[in-house]
Amino acid sequence: VVGLGLIGGSLLRRLADQLPVCGYDADELTRAAARDAGYEVLESVGELVRTSQLVVLAVPLPELPAVIAEVAAAAHEHLVVTDVCSVKAPVLDLVRPTRIPYVGGHPMAGSERSGFAAADPALFDGAAWVLCLEDDTPLVTWLVLARLVTGMGCRVVPCTAADHDQAVARVSHLPHALAAALAAGAAGSPLALALAAGSFRDGTRVAATRPELSAAMCVGNAPALSIELDALIARLTELRRRLTDGEDPTDWFLPGHQVRTGWPRPAAGFDLTDGEDLRLRLLDVGRRGAAVTGIGKDGEGRLLLSCAG
Amino acid sequence: VVGLGLIGGSLLRRLADQLPVCGYDADELTRAAARDAGYEVLESVGELVRTSQLVVLAVPLPELPAVIAEVAAAAHEHLVVTDVCSVKAPVLDLVRPTRIPYVGGHPMAGSERSGFAAADPALFDGAAWVLCLEDDTPLVTWLVLARLVTGMGCRVVPCTAADHDQAVARVSHLPHALAAALAAGAAGSPLALALAAGSFRDGTRVAATRPELSAAMCVGNAPALSIELDALIARLTELRRRLTDGEDPTDWFLPGHQVRTGWPRPAAGFDLTDGEDLRLRLLDVGRRGAAVTGIGKDGEGRLLLSCAG
Repeated sequence: VVGLGLIGGSLLRRLADQLPVCGYDADELTRAAARDAGYEVLESVGELVRTSQLVVLAVPLPELPAVIAEVAAAAHEHLVVTDVCSVKAPVLDLVRPTRIPYVGGHPMAGSERSGFAAADPALFDGAAWVLCLEDDTPLVTWLVLARLVTGMGCRVVPCTAADHDQAVARVSHLPHALAAALAAGAAGSPLALALAAGSFRDGTRVAATRPELSAAMCVGNAPALSIELDALIARLTELRRRLTDGEDPTDWFLPGHQVRTGWPRPAAGFDLTDGEDLRLRLLDVGRRGAAVTGIGKDGEGRLLLSCAG
Repeated sequence: VVGLGLIGGSLLRRLADQLPVCGYDADELTRAAARDAGYEVLESVGELVRTSQLVVLAVPLPELPAVIAEVAAAAHEHLVVTDVCSVKAPVLDLVRPTRIPYVGGHPMAGSERSGFAAADPALFDGAAWVLCLEDDTPLVTWLVLARLVTGMGCRVVPCTAADHDQAVARVSHLPHALAAALAAGAAGSPLALALAAGSFRDGTRVAATRPELSAAMCVGNAPALSIELDALIARLTELRRRLTDGEDPTDWFLPGHQVRTGWPRPAAGFDLTDGEDLRLRLLDVGRRGAAVTGIGKDGEGRLLLSCAG
């Protein structure tokens, strides 16, 4: 595990129960803290790569180019790389030229805290965990990682990096932008803030996120977020037009009502067996909003993937 | 109390502890339910008006014109009227021609439930309660109502109908529109909904409101909401431009961050004494986001208004 902050540190703690695992962090104090907590901590990315078969990159996006160069310099033929960044296409673009087998990952878990001191092996319990499946992702590598992640009690959502980035723009980055825009509208309005209640409280909650974190998140996924912003602005412009024209907006409110009252939906289980087109069938699982929950064998020794959604 | 739904019914129950109070509802079953619960229920608006000094209109906005005509037909010289509608300028426009002393009111309390069966005397505990103060509102009438409302444990926020409508457009109607627009964006995206977590959950919560209720709320306050929609669309368009131009959006996120981390703010107490310009000083209390919390007398028998904010 390269990078021992909240996510990387939690992963080191969680995996140590089931695998031989070691870590590295660019910060000397973080390395000392992890070592004091009883974990094996190495002194460079190169040393870690040379002694590992699977490397998890858990550093912020701006630090990834330098770290990936260090990984590539020490790469060996048994090496597999994954990561935990909240945006996937830019990471794919960075790793692909190294030709190291790579599966992009994104655990949908976190907290408002940060650093190794906040690391918690239970952070991922029950979480969705995206594992990206591109045309050139080795399926066997994807399955190894999926088994590791389902073994941690997570649901593995298979999708492409592009589909992931559009989806998180829609349900995570856009809500952060809207919360900030809504809260900003009440600046300089003490009367409005005195009358604000539940809808303002919930609609602006994530506006309390540190501005530089929200900004980095949006910039890192700018193309996908721009598409979502355009669609949202168009929807609001249509509501504005109806108010001007005196046209009933009830059916404008209907799609959002249907989505929200139907979410989250109850999950049903189903199985996938290994065979033809497994890659396409896995991508279809993610596209349907379902996930792989376990990987085992059927009575005849064939791969059997338990799914739910 | 005319209209015994959630708000009117809760008010009937709450006031019955301290005043002789009676109610009316257009629905026969609701009248029977209130009577069975031990309350005095009359058979017409006219009968109620003739036996009351203060009438509280607690019917939906579309029913108000007819109810106000009935009230005006039975009006007497000691009658005072208030209401609990969530929009104030349209009600003022309806009542003003009757020349009945009127103070617009809006308790900032509610629940997702409705009807007399859901009525709860504790619904208003600790709530802000707007009482409108226009140039032509008799100050003595306003003070009588303010004493009644503070006596129920509510904070009275003095403001004009126009300022009220702009404030609730900003912190209540706009959040409802944004929640619906955000939720609608995820329609037909099972993958996005599978990855959605806290920011989507909170940002879309009020999209579960019945579409016809959200629509009626927005149409009832269309001029004020249109101004807020324009401002919000402009803010989002600026973020969109920054993403396109590769300009750092950190300071775009800053005002919302400041508003949200400073809200709700701790309140400090202060007093107002009766005298010159009390009307203007009361409006200033509301404009500052403060409220009247109690009305009593000072050592020399003069009116003393306790405030907080």
